[in-house]
Amino acid sequence: MVIDCHGHYTTAPKSLQTYRERQIAELDSGSRASTRGDLGIGDDELRESVQPQLTFQRDRGTDVTIFSPRASAMAHHIGDAVTSLHWSQHCNDLIARVCGLFPENFVGVCQLPQTPGVAPDNCVEELERCVTGLGFIGCNLNPDPSGGHWTAPPLTDPYWYPFYEKMVELDVPAMVHVSASCNPNFHTTGAHYLNADTTAFMQFLTGDLFARFPTLRFIVPHGGGAVPYHWGRYRGLAQDMKRPPLTELLGSNVFFDTCVYHQAGIDLLLKIVPVDNVLFGSEMVGAVRGIDPETGHYFDDTKRYVDAAAVSDEDRRKVFEGNARRVFPRITARFAVAP
Amino acid sequence: MVIDCHGHYTTAPKSLQTYRERQIAELDSGSRASTRGDLGIGDDELRESVQPQLTFQRDRGTDVTIFSPRASAMAHHIGDAVTSLHWSQHCNDLIARVCGLFPENFVGVCQLPQTPGVAPDNCVEELERCVTGLGFIGCNLNPDPSGGHWTAPPLTDPYWYPFYEKMVELDVPAMVHVSASCNPNFHTTGAHYLNADTTAFMQFLTGDLFARFPTLRFIVPHGGGAVPYHWGRYRGLAQDMKRPPLTELLGSNVFFDTCVYHQAGIDLLLKIVPVDNVLFGSEMVGAVRGIDPETGHYFDDTKRYVDAAAVSDEDRRKVFEGNARRVFPRITARFAVAP
Repeated sequence: MVIDCHGHYTTAPKSLQTYRERQIAELDSGSRASTRGDLGIGDDELRESVQPQLTFQRDRGTDVTIFSPRASAMAHHIGDAVTSLHWSQHCNDLIARVCGLFPENFVGVCQLPQTPGVAPDNCVEELERCVTGLGFIGCNLNPDPSGGHWTAPPLTDPYWYPFYEKMVELDVPAMVHVSASCNPNFHTTGAHYLNADTTAFMQFLTGDLFARFPTLRFIVPHGGGAVPYHWGRYRGLAQDMKRPPLTELLGSNVFFDTCVYHQAGIDLLLKIVPVDNVLFGSEMVGAVRGIDPETGHYFDDTKRYVDAAAVSDEDRRKVFEGNARRVFPRITARFAVAP
Repeated sequence: MVIDCHGHYTTAPKSLQTYRERQIAELDSGSRASTRGDLGIGDDELRESVQPQLTFQRDRGTDVTIFSPRASAMAHHIGDAVTSLHWSQHCNDLIARVCGLFPENFVGVCQLPQTPGVAPDNCVEELERCVTGLGFIGCNLNPDPSGGHWTAPPLTDPYWYPFYEKMVELDVPAMVHVSASCNPNFHTTGAHYLNADTTAFMQFLTGDLFARFPTLRFIVPHGGGAVPYHWGRYRGLAQDMKRPPLTELLGSNVFFDTCVYHQAGIDLLLKIVPVDNVLFGSEMVGAVRGIDPETGHYFDDTKRYVDAAAVSDEDRRKVFEGNARRVFPRITARFAVAP
């Protein structure tokens, strides 16, 4: 079985965007609705909207996608906590409906109603609703709800602890995933995403979060940002700072996905990072949508790179399935391990 | 000849730090001196202070270091433009003196008196003084003088043009190099440096800066941040955005150094990035100071990795010397090409 741990609903029906635009317009006009309103999206529209993902799954030979709302559209920096809650609930409900329509193909991960300056305690309820009510198996946690101004405390700060306590209680991991950048310095998918990955990893390296929360688990997406390429730098920094070796720091707490869009990058990732800490992911349909003229295949068809990497079949199975089951234990209630 | 394009004066005599601490204390007390004062550092102290660099050059088989003030200590976010000017002039003067004492071993690159909210027009004079007066061959340009709050416009914005015009006139490149982070999210050497590299590259990819300044040259240090590891992502983004291929975008304008502290990282860099766009650098004595227990050699002894990489001798000579001469043409007045 091949589990893609990183897929966003980037092909949602247009009405979702229309809702969001109306929500933002109401903010601007000061006439914000106090109720969250309806999307008015039918099941047929939903079925139609995920045909690209289903086709890619079939063509590429993957089985199930751990599916979450479009990351760049979370835009936690827009409006306030109520804006974010209404928007998150709608986005999460759509994911739940897609997962209900195609239970063999998708399992849900939720967006959180984060907002700048508000402690993530306010996200506990939505996480609980999604996990216990909608059958979701994880969440996307934004380390920078300000959208590129980085005004929240580091992920190792007690600011985040109440949310982590709920994650631990529910036994769900978080993918550390920022949203769109509203800082003109940072291109969203070409800089902000990767910077956030690198930043979060270094926060984990310097903090003692996992001594306090030994079962807390994070996926650092996009292949871990700059980290595997600079593995020597991080090993050296950890050593200079008298921190444990990186392999120990990763342990069963920090994982990278395989959203790296060329063979040499995946080769480096799988050569350098302990295989137990790598989860297959493609970010499909996502950041890069074209076909690589050098290979004739989609840039984000990461399964091809993992298939071609010099690792044992046993290790490849870990990357494709086994590790995802450890990190997202709730997936096994939905997809039993093959006998 | 082996030219190390990336060395900072991290071993300066203690009096330099004492000066800086006094300068900051005066800022805090509101009694800022209107003159820049003296450091009171003798030549013997300077000679003594660079013995580590000289020893490393000898031991590692490198010849000359392109030498600049300690990057993390630039701290453009402290004080105002006058603070930064006094501090930069002192730091640059020390570099000039070291280069004068060891003219076979060091050639200077300057720090700039940047300050948040002030356009870099105010750096033109110090650049000119350093290049025409002190024999420097380049500068370090900080894309984020705020120290991790990213409040300046992107490097492709006309905000920077007056400074670029002087760079072009003097025919000197800039290394894009941030300083210490005062944002608790970003560890200085483990996140902020690499994020800035990634960010700057993506700015160059999306902008049209080099159409306007065809001879402007930037070194993106630390191996280009996350970029080579994510080369497929950047090729794909460029294609999706209808930008030219990356090799064309790099052209004779954007270069990466080899400050990547493990063999697999250097192997990827030299396999993926056009060899004409890679300059040897070590960041010595710098971010990572320890010995790698896996190899028994210093993490930042990057010459070993380049020596061991699967490239032709001709390509290795480009990385060690030829490319640095193209990017820093003024170096050849100081170090003639071997007959």
